[in-house]
Order: sequence, then structure tokens, then C-alpha cells
Amino acid sequence: MTRFKSHMDTALAEASAAATRGEVPVGAVLVAPDGHVVAQAGNRTRELNDPTAHAEILVIREGCTRAGSERLPGYDLYVTLEPCPMCATAISAARIRRVYYAAADPKSGGVAQGPRIFSHPQCHHVPEVYDGIGAGEAEQILRDFFAARR
Amino acid sequence: MTRFKSHMDTALAEASAAATRGEVPVGAVLVAPDGHVVAQAGNRTRELNDPTAHAEILVIREGCTRAGSERLPGYDLYVTLEPCPMCATAISAARIRRVYYAAADPKSGGVAQGPRIFSHPQCHHVPEVYDGIGAGEAEQILRDFFAARR
Repeated sequence: MTRFKSHMDTALAEASAAATRGEVPVGAVLVAPDGHVVAQAGNRTRELNDPTAHAEILVIREGCTRAGSERLPGYDLYVTLEPCPMCATAISAARIRRVYYAAADPKSGGVAQGPRIFSHPQCHHVPEVYDGIGAGEAEQILRDFFAARR
Repeated sequence: MTRFKSHMDTALAEASAAATRGEVPVGAVLVAPDGHVVAQAGNRTRELNDPTAHAEILVIREGCTRAGSERLPGYDLYVTLEPCPMCATAISAARIRRVYYAAADPKSGGVAQGPRIFSHPQCHHVPEVYDGIGAGEAEQILRDFFAARR
């Protein structure tokens, strides 16, 4: 198992844990330049009454607190769903090096569709983006969650 | 003086206060449906080591905490600069009713330029947007801040 898949598996476990809390099941992992996981989280918007508490925002804020900096150059972020425009912009503002995301999000995504955040001159730092790792598992977790709510 | 100008004046005062802290001078005010100010803030990204600590995000998070909800229908937001795509998406996610912003932001804006967050089907709630109130003062505060840093 590659390290990419290992980190995405951690993010998928965070997504599943979010589902058990009644949160939209999305998980994220932040990896420091030395390869260590410095933060991992699932969505907590309902628990925290905070519409910005997406998994990506939670790991970026925790990583910045630990680093004592508002920027995280050389850090990589793994997330189970294509980031929304809010998270994609935060990823850029934090100067994240690489983003690995699993499932595409035609409904709310902001990277490969809709506002395509990284494609405009207003985006001052463009990370490398890799999609598809663990997409099948991520989609299944989301499908199960929404099927159970119908 | 209209109430719109009064709330924007409060936001402008928050922008000036941010400048004295060495933060990019942007201020925001959140107004509840009953017309009362429930949160006001200036940027604190440096102080908090948090790239998401824009004025808009800070007032939305505080307003949600006070309301005990991740959504703020009927609330209005005043901000001295055109929201970036992160903040515009958070405004939509929070179901803010109206956004009043002062100065345009060709460099980093995400409402009237670049990703134009509210113009895509991936944006599930589109607030009413009014621009230009207090634009001259907001631009002057920004110009003074960046001139002093050169």
C-alpha cells in the first residue's frame, strides 16, 4: 500500500466517523513536509454550529496553530471529496503544496467544476491536484449516508 | 445617515483597528433580522495564525455560535472589501440574506470577478449583493496601510 493510499484511508476513516455523528461524511488529513500526519478531521458543521467547519478547514486551522503560521508551504492535504470553493480558497491561502481528493463533487465542488477556484488570476497560489485515489470508497460512504436519511 | 451607512461605518472602524494590529484592513459587521449588530470583527489572520480568519468568517462563526445554528437566514453582512471566494462561499453556506460591500477587490475578489462564486449552479444560496457603500473610505484605509508598508 502506498503512502498516498494510507493517508487517504485515514481520511476515509474520518469520513465514516463523521457519518456516525450525523455529519456529511467527508474526512481530511494534513501531512507535514517530513511525512507525518499533523491533523486529521471529519466534518463538524452541525456539532460546532459552524458552516465553515468542513474537514479541510479544520485540519488547516489545526496545522497552522501547530506550525505557528498562517501558511503551510510543503504540506499536503488528503480529502475524501472534491473541495468546495471555500475550502479550495483556504487551501490556496495556506499555500498547501499538494491536494489529493477522492470523489468528485458535481453538486458543490469548486476545483474541477463550477467556480474552478485554482483557474483564476485571483488565485495567488495553485497547489498540485491529484484526484481519484479512494474514490470508490468515498462515494460508497456518501451514498450510504444519504440513503439512510431518505 | 441611513442605517446602511451606519453599519458600514462600524465595519470601516473595524478595518482601521485591524490596520493598527498589522492586519490587512478589512472589517465586517453581522446584523440580525431584528436589526441589531450581533458580531463585528476585523481581519485577524496573523494574530491567530489562521488563514481563514477573515473578518467575514469571524462574524459568521460568532453569529452562528450565538444563534446556535450553522445557518443565519435573514441576517445581513456588511464588509469593507469585496469578499474573497472563501468568504463568499461561507456567506452562501450560512444562508446570509444580503451582503453589502464597500470597495471592489480586483486582486482577490470572488463575487464580481474571478470565480464569481454566486453565479454557478454549485452555489445553493445566492444572497442579495449591494456594493459601493463607503467604497471611498475603504479604499483609502487600504491604500494608507499598503503605502506605509512599502
